[in-house]
Amino acid sequence: MTNSVSSHAKIGKNFKIGNFSIVHDNVCLGDNVEIGSFCIIGHPFSGTLDNKILSIGSNSVIRSHSIIYEGSTIGADFQTGHNVLIREKAQFGQGCRVGSNSDIEGDCSIGDFVHFHSYAHVGKGSKISDFVWIYSLVTLTNDPLPPSMISRPIILESGVVICVNSTVLPGTIMKKGSFASAATLVRGVIEEGMIVSGPECRPSGHVSTLVDWESGLRHPWMRHLEARYPESAHQRIRQLLKDISSSKFKESSV
Amino acid sequence: MTNSVSSHAKIGKNFKIGNFSIVHDNVCLGDNVEIGSFCIIGHPFSGTLDNKILSIGSNSVIRSHSIIYEGSTIGADFQTGHNVLIREKAQFGQGCRVGSNSDIEGDCSIGDFVHFHSYAHVGKGSKISDFVWIYSLVTLTNDPLPPSMISRPIILESGVVICVNSTVLPGTIMKKGSFASAATLVRGVIEEGMIVSGPECRPSGHVSTLVDWESGLRHPWMRHLEARYPESAHQRIRQLLKDISSSKFKESSV
Amino acid sequence: MTNSVSSHAKIGKNFKIGNFSIVHDNVCLGDNVEIGSFCIIGHPFSGTLDNKILSIGSNSVIRSHSIIYEGSTIGADFQTGHNVLIREKAQFGQGCRVGSNSDIEGDCSIGDFVHFHSYAHVGKGSKISDFVWIYSLVTLTNDPLPPSMISRPIILESGVVICVNSTVLPGTIMKKGSFASAATLVRGVIEEGMIVSGPECRPSGHVSTLVDWESGLRHPWMRHLEARYPESAHQRIRQLLKDISSSKFKESSV
Repeated sequence: MTNSVSSHAKIGKNFKIGNFSIVHDNVCLGDNVEIGSFCIIGHPFSGTLDNKILSIGSNSVIRSHSIIYEGSTIGADFQTGHNVLIREKAQFGQGCRVGSNSDIEGDCSIGDFVHFHSYAHVGKGSKISDFVWIYSLVTLTNDPLPPSMISRPIILESGVVICVNSTVLPGTIMKKGSFASAATLVRGVIEEGMIVSGPECRPSGHVSTLVDWESGLRHPWMRHLEARYPESAHQRIRQLLKDISSSKFKESSV
Repeated sequence: MTNSVSSHAKIGKNFKIGNFSIVHDNVCLGDNVEIGSFCIIGHPFSGTLDNKILSIGSNSVIRSHSIIYEGSTIGADFQTGHNVLIREKAQFGQGCRVGSNSDIEGDCSIGDFVHFHSYAHVGKGSKISDFVWIYSLVTLTNDPLPPSMISRPIILESGVVICVNSTVLPGTIMKKGSFASAATLVRGVIEEGMIVSGPECRPSGHVSTLVDWESGLRHPWMRHLEARYPESAHQRIRQLLKDISSSKFKESSV
Repeated sequence: MTNSVSSHAKIGKNFKIGNFSIVHDNVCLGDNVEIGSFCIIGHPFSGTLDNKILSIGSNSVIRSHSIIYEGSTIGADFQTGHNVLIREKAQFGQGCRVGSNSDIEGDCSIGDFVHFHSYAHVGKGSKISDFVWIYSLVTLTNDPLPPSMISRPIILESGVVICVNSTVLPGTIMKKGSFASAATLVRGVIEEGMIVSGPECRPSGHVSTLVDWESGLRHPWMRHLEARYPESAHQRIRQLLKDISSSKFKESSV
């Protein structure tokens, strides 16, 4: 083993680490954490930080070539793919997944059980709630008049789904359970449970109308994915499902 | 040299490896294989595998920071760019190229002489035939109702071309020699030799009508690229060219 | 420290380098250069080069997991994010920034103070002038009839802005200060100061009409960003601003 683990780092029980990895000072790892090879954990940040600690919860797996800056807080049961970059002052709840080659910029706040697939790019200051799914090559921007020094970050409420290769413009608010189809240019305020599509971000119905014709499977996804979440999350999932379903009637009664 | 090469790995003649690279057990390399620095070859897979061997054919070049999982089979004359990720149970024929930062998920089957440019993202289970060209930032998806647990992978027949930043939706079948222009949202069944374009995946003619006006060069590409393939492939290229050309008449006679 | 730094490399004063990094022969670094961990500086190129030297100017910062080939020339005050790839025969002026996961192919010529955000992909032979801004997931292509062996690279004049997830087609010329909105399929000749948008690359006014309604901030960006550039660049910025503003009247007088 040829690693470089700081003796100032606080490391839980049952720690595993690959070859050629670096753990800096200011790192605090829970129990059963596994770090792959060629990683940098607690990468120094050149600016100032109120709290320099990088804390990663227990049972987390950080795959190879990943870089996580100091000054972030990450909940338990966290998993990354390979070559993931997470900058300073990011907050993650429990049970999050970040796919290979993703780049999560600083000052983001991310809830519980959020999934990012490969090449997700989350701009500085984004606010993402629980049970959100973000697919490959999705970008969350924040500059309304690039290049300016204005930042107008994105807000994603619980249960939002953003499909592959969608771009979310600055200041967008996607409300509970709303859904962006593949390659959508998402902007403005997307109402609860609404589907939007295409370069015009056209509203095209409520998520409860989404059906996979071959299998007969229906949205929202929480119906069929509940088993993949821990028991403790099931009550919240059911409440979220209820809220999204009822948003359908709110819409139609307008 | 500070490497970590397992003594259980089977390694051919004339092996070269950069600094700080890792070769795990279960790896079987042909002759004249070259591995760059910071690579992980035979990365352990956490699930179960019938066959844990990662086999890479002779005369292959794996560039730095790449990660290839155990349980995959890769033909001779393989080349990757930098930071390429290839997961378990992938099959590659001979003479394939995978560009930098690409991510090939598990259970894919890929033919001979397939080219992926940078940031290609190939979803689990994709089936790709021979002489296919996939350009930068192309994503092959597989979930028809994300997030579901249904997988409806993509099928690409011989000679298909998919230009930059196109997204291919689940269950798409692109038949022999069909062509997706840049930034197309590809879906459904694309007929032999057909060109499709744009967010509406609009059919816009047969590949034999593609001309570069300045040079007078015409599609299909096999006319002018034959010299770049080994002698042994020329007969197959000519047959493919013939098939694609004749598909033009099939279409017009409908 | 476990690095591999060639004794043939020429290295300036006050050099810093992370762990597990490689500096090859043919490298020439200015003073105060900082290299992160897991980098390859002066990566050998397999073809022939008139000049094999990789020269990087003073006060530059190359972040971890980056790869820079031999045979390129990079001006002072250069900064990269993580996992940046720069190939051979690239030329950069002073004060450039290249975001994480970007891939700059060979033979590119890039002016002063050019900014690339994450996942920028710059095709071989691109010519980019000063003060250009290229956002995440933008691709500059060069093959007009893929796959062909024709290369028709892109030309971007001073002050051009290309927003996230835009694809620039081969042979495109974007004139001084022109602006591509998010997710544009850019092609043809874009006139000075023109805005283009969408899959149709529709012209939609002059950059001087861009306003952020909440803050009242107006384009062009040089008005409000001047302070971020060194004193020595201010005169050039003011001239560029003047040129772009006057292009407005040229257009309307046609």
